[in-house]
Amino acid sequence: MAQKPSIPKGTRDFGPQEMSRRNYIFNTIREVYSLYGFQQIETPAMENLSTLMGKYGEEGDKLLFKILNSGDFLRGIGADDLGAGATGHLAALLCEKGLRYDLTVPFARYVVQHREELALPFRRYQIQPVWRADRPQKGRYREFYQCDADVVGSDSLLCEVELMQIIDEVFRRFGIRVCIKINNRKILSGIAEMIGEADKIVDITVAIDKLDKIGLDAVNEELREDGISEEAIQKLQPIINLSGTNEEKIQTMRQVLAGSEVGLKGIDEVEYVLKTLTASPQTPLRGEGLSAAKDSPLLGEGAGERLLLELDLTLARGLNYYTGSIFEVQALDVEIGSITGGGRYDNLTGIFGMPGLSGVGISFGADRIYDVLNQLDLYPEAVTTATQVLFINFGEKETSYSLPILAMLRSQGIRCEIYPDASKMKKQMQYANQKGIPFVAMTGETEMAEGKVMLKNMQTGEQQLLSPDEMILKLKSRG
Amino acid sequence: MAQKPSIPKGTRDFGPQEMSRRNYIFNTIREVYSLYGFQQIETPAMENLSTLMGKYGEEGDKLLFKILNSGDFLRGIGADDLGAGATGHLAALLCEKGLRYDLTVPFARYVVQHREELALPFRRYQIQPVWRADRPQKGRYREFYQCDADVVGSDSLLCEVELMQIIDEVFRRFGIRVCIKINNRKILSGIAEMIGEADKIVDITVAIDKLDKIGLDAVNEELREDGISEEAIQKLQPIINLSGTNEEKIQTMRQVLAGSEVGLKGIDEVEYVLKTLTASPQTPLRGEGLSAAKDSPLLGEGAGERLLLELDLTLARGLNYYTGSIFEVQALDVEIGSITGGGRYDNLTGIFGMPGLSGVGISFGADRIYDVLNQLDLYPEAVTTATQVLFINFGEKETSYSLPILAMLRSQGIRCEIYPDASKMKKQMQYANQKGIPFVAMTGETEMAEGKVMLKNMQTGEQQLLSPDEMILKLKSRG
Repeated sequence: MAQKPSIPKGTRDFGPQEMSRRNYIFNTIREVYSLYGFQQIETPAMENLSTLMGKYGEEGDKLLFKILNSGDFLRGIGADDLGAGATGHLAALLCEKGLRYDLTVPFARYVVQHREELALPFRRYQIQPVWRADRPQKGRYREFYQCDADVVGSDSLLCEVELMQIIDEVFRRFGIRVCIKINNRKILSGIAEMIGEADKIVDITVAIDKLDKIGLDAVNEELREDGISEEAIQKLQPIINLSGTNEEKIQTMRQVLAGSEVGLKGIDEVEYVLKTLTASPQTPLRGEGLSAAKDSPLLGEGAGERLLLELDLTLARGLNYYTGSIFEVQALDVEIGSITGGGRYDNLTGIFGMPGLSGVGISFGADRIYDVLNQLDLYPEAVTTATQVLFINFGEKETSYSLPILAMLRSQGIRCEIYPDASKMKKQMQYANQKGIPFVAMTGETEMAEGKVMLKNMQTGEQQLLSPDEMILKLKSRG
Repeated sequence: MAQKPSIPKGTRDFGPQEMSRRNYIFNTIREVYSLYGFQQIETPAMENLSTLMGKYGEEGDKLLFKILNSGDFLRGIGADDLGAGATGHLAALLCEKGLRYDLTVPFARYVVQHREELALPFRRYQIQPVWRADRPQKGRYREFYQCDADVVGSDSLLCEVELMQIIDEVFRRFGIRVCIKINNRKILSGIAEMIGEADKIVDITVAIDKLDKIGLDAVNEELREDGISEEAIQKLQPIINLSGTNEEKIQTMRQVLAGSEVGLKGIDEVEYVLKTLTASPQTPLRGEGLSAAKDSPLLGEGAGERLLLELDLTLARGLNYYTGSIFEVQALDVEIGSITGGGRYDNLTGIFGMPGLSGVGISFGADRIYDVLNQLDLYPEAVTTATQVLFINFGEKETSYSLPILAMLRSQGIRCEIYPDASKMKKQMQYANQKGIPFVAMTGETEMAEGKVMLKNMQTGEQQLLSPDEMILKLKSRG
């Protein structure tokens, strides 16, 4: 007996139901990106390893999937190269290409490579899979999709504002209540400066970033291990524990950071983004005019609104290329960690020889959003319905009668199929049930004589004798 | 200076304009597949090499991209294995996984692996990239998309009929005039039998398949080299040269194949497919009722119709897993070879331990369809328009005034953006031109005082002072 085939660990097959749900997620994100003038690009799955190596830290290099050179891949490789232990060196000789690890580095490569063709500022979005040789575990895969949008070529904070609006609109469409946490790397730099540990900014952000996961005591312990002075740690406490409304936090931090130019710049930036978002709420009701757009659903802690926007000074985000705004989105009704994140980077294209191009981007976590929508059962019904009508196959004569009706339905956008074989009624009905098809059409002697079709509602069992035109009306009204 | 980055040869970046055109192609195909009850699946980019090896012939095995095992990939590999020359053996030790080469083998693997969950007959479609280490050349890439639909679990010829209807409808939507060539492997087997060379069926089909490319004399020469007798080759000539209407060809072949059971079966199958298609033309005009569906646009050689359906006995298609119907689509107005193809296979899942499952499928060649649409300039205008309005950025006050209007437009589905920086007017206008944005919105003192917007048509230069509501109406009417 042949062994049942399988797929590599950490990868997944997506069946019809999962696909329609995933497409609903991707299409929603795509539509909103388009509304904001973002245009789609795609880059190859394979990049030259020289493009990828050294961009994700030492750990990241190890997690790259490398592709064996084609043909005689051993040509030019000597006995020395094959010596045990030097796998990194050997891998570089055996492989020129690797699978992309994220969409950000390929995007930076794209911008530099195509700079002559691009209209800057360039707003692109990209929805493609990425691959990481991570140890597979629950919720972590070796192949997964990223859904990124970035603007490069402008340091205007309006870009941040629009990206927050996109996040708001996407989750409004999904019906997921979220909190957007926002912070700024410049504030973190200012804090490091003020506590006298400017050179330890990376260690400090890495430690603070873990607050939600490991708690305050463990964070302080880590800071001590990093060699941060006890005095500095004490100075940090009120900042980490800062509470109140966004405006109160901003006022307090203005005092704390009074001596730090970069820190105050960060505060200004955060304040601008928060104020502009509050003044320009999303999706005002049509017809009520501009004056109706006063009561903002955005700002305000605990306002009981759908969307919260919170200045969180403990938000650090691990990626070191961020230089300004950083943000992260959390679902309010499901414990799942960050479901979207992003930030501003000032020199991403510098590594490819094009310095001084500022950019800001976000990335929706499709897999986690999928889990949240599943847990809260938020998928619209239409998403999961595929075929709307199944025509029962009674034999050749009935099929000849049915086929032109199927063509009529399809020309009206109704998804339908005819069972390909004249199998037993029970088997055909079972097929309709298994596929979740809501209606079944039957064409027997009587129906054919009258030029009609018997339409059966599979849920209620109700049957109706209808002309093709009546059938179209009925099915269209159900959407 | 850093070297300008590049991508691996044979791969491509797709920019915004290419992406919108490609999405138009994929969405059209997707919509039509859905109308016929096909459901989407996706499989991982990486498959176990054991799934892929040996499925595409010896040449295919060499063209698989193999992925270097993660971690210590040399563990367990001895000096013997590293000896020069044995690259195939060594590759198998270094690599467990490979990139998918087509969508058919992963689909067969999927069906066997998930057989308990599937409602048979299973109609799936799949639109994903595949990778082949082919020598890159004009029009041939190492990464390209396939757009497949298959029905497995039924040997009903209605499946063939529906797949032909799908091809018809897809190309009708594209506006591409095509000829569908249809044949049947059983007819080819019958012919091999009748000329006394039944065991040479593969050689015969491979040679005949080249008729269009190399001409009759070269085909005959190849047949001789394959050891086909002169007598058999002479018997083949009238069949290769067969002309006339489909019905005439069928009549002739019924006589030629009178002694071959399998040959006659093939004729019956082709005749059923052709007749059923003729009796059930696509997309009858709504409201004219069933009786209007008489004049078929499908059948008939040289009928001057949009779609031709031609029985072509020289159509063989290289892939040896086909066992019944085979088809291929050619564009009538562009010389580019086959743009879609497919056929019936009786034992594709057998290699994974699930014999006896018949299936039939088609595959649209997205890259070639892209080229045809470009050459004939058939893209609808809306496909290439991204952002519909650019708001000029005059500064902070004007931006505050504009942002709620942008939100209103977006809530009405209008794609718009505001230039992020208050740059010089000329620069902002240039950006609109480069992006092909048809309208520009200006909000100066006068407009703000009146609660209006100055809308400029970038093509005609015409300017109109409009309220946000009027602006929405105007932009919506332009689609």
